[in-house]
Amino acid sequence: MSELEKILNIEADSNLKHFKKGEFIQQPNQLKANAVFVKKGLIRSYIIDSTGKEHIYMFASEGWITGDIDAVEFNEPTTLYIDCLEDSEVVLLKSDHLKEADLSKDKLLQNMKKMSRNLGKMQRRILMLIGSPAVDRYNYFLETYPELPNRVPQKMIASYLGIMPQTLSTIRSKIAKGE
Amino acid sequence: MSELEKILNIEADSNLKHFKKGEFIQQPNQLKANAVFVKKGLIRSYIIDSTGKEHIYMFASEGWITGDIDAVEFNEPTTLYIDCLEDSEVVLLKSDHLKEADLSKDKLLQNMKKMSRNLGKMQRRILMLIGSPAVDRYNYFLETYPELPNRVPQKMIASYLGIMPQTLSTIRSKIAKGE
Repeated sequence: MSELEKILNIEADSNLKHFKKGEFIQQPNQLKANAVFVKKGLIRSYIIDSTGKEHIYMFASEGWITGDIDAVEFNEPTTLYIDCLEDSEVVLLKSDHLKEADLSKDKLLQNMKKMSRNLGKMQRRILMLIGSPAVDRYNYFLETYPELPNRVPQKMIASYLGIMPQTLSTIRSKIAKGE
Repeated sequence: MSELEKILNIEADSNLKHFKKGEFIQQPNQLKANAVFVKKGLIRSYIIDSTGKEHIYMFASEGWITGDIDAVEFNEPTTLYIDCLEDSEVVLLKSDHLKEADLSKDKLLQNMKKMSRNLGKMQRRILMLIGSPAVDRYNYFLETYPELPNRVPQKMIASYLGIMPQTLSTIRSKIAKGE
């Protein structure tokens, strides 16, 4: 069991769900949202804007938690599509999961540390989106998700970065040439 | 004392600092970062990109906490400028503040709830940045910061939204005309 599973008090069999590649775990406008812990596989969350364009919000592979936090926390309808890029095993967490888990104070402090770090990562993502060139965003993507380039099509990485697939090709070939 | 001050166990006199309008609370490349609780006044955080352009990351008025969470959590040098838009009284929080505060389990759960909600708000900000038109981003700004339009110059609001000041004028006059 991973450190995070221990902190979150996730039992292997509680709410474990299996999804096939391509299946949806969540779609927009559902009334009930869950945070999703990935035990095995790879999932992604995305939105489709008013012009029909898809924008990837996050990827999550083994050991990650992701979800529609805004919907979970404010009891609002979901906004994200969440689907599986590979066959996946996930645990659906309830918003009051931690409250009910009767965790020790030490576990709660560990979990808060984890949440603070997630806030830190989201801050960096926002700063990257508002003020960093595409090449820096790609390097941060590689740092955050070191093994994903082999598991995810280039056009999805481009969507996550908010750039055109051609721009990503140019960046990758510049990096390959050591420029 | 506000609910948040109680949760965070902030004493009125602990680390209370006064800053004048225009003064910096933090600059980039400092080795030590603190989260900042605003007791009075108005502060903002921003970055300057490689072309010299300023991008506002956040505003924080009375009762808000803001800071360079990425730097605090990963013990990295700061990336944000944080300065005062009004004379301000702030409390500088240490990263281990909560650990040292010896809080009850109930307070810790309350604080986690607060952090989850902040994660939810950051999610929404990211989704807005990647997939929403400027008018939606402006409406969400008004929802998040209802009293700021009277306290902050238009050009700073435009910078927060990632649009040109002229675009913001157009949006505002369309809203005024009920379009």
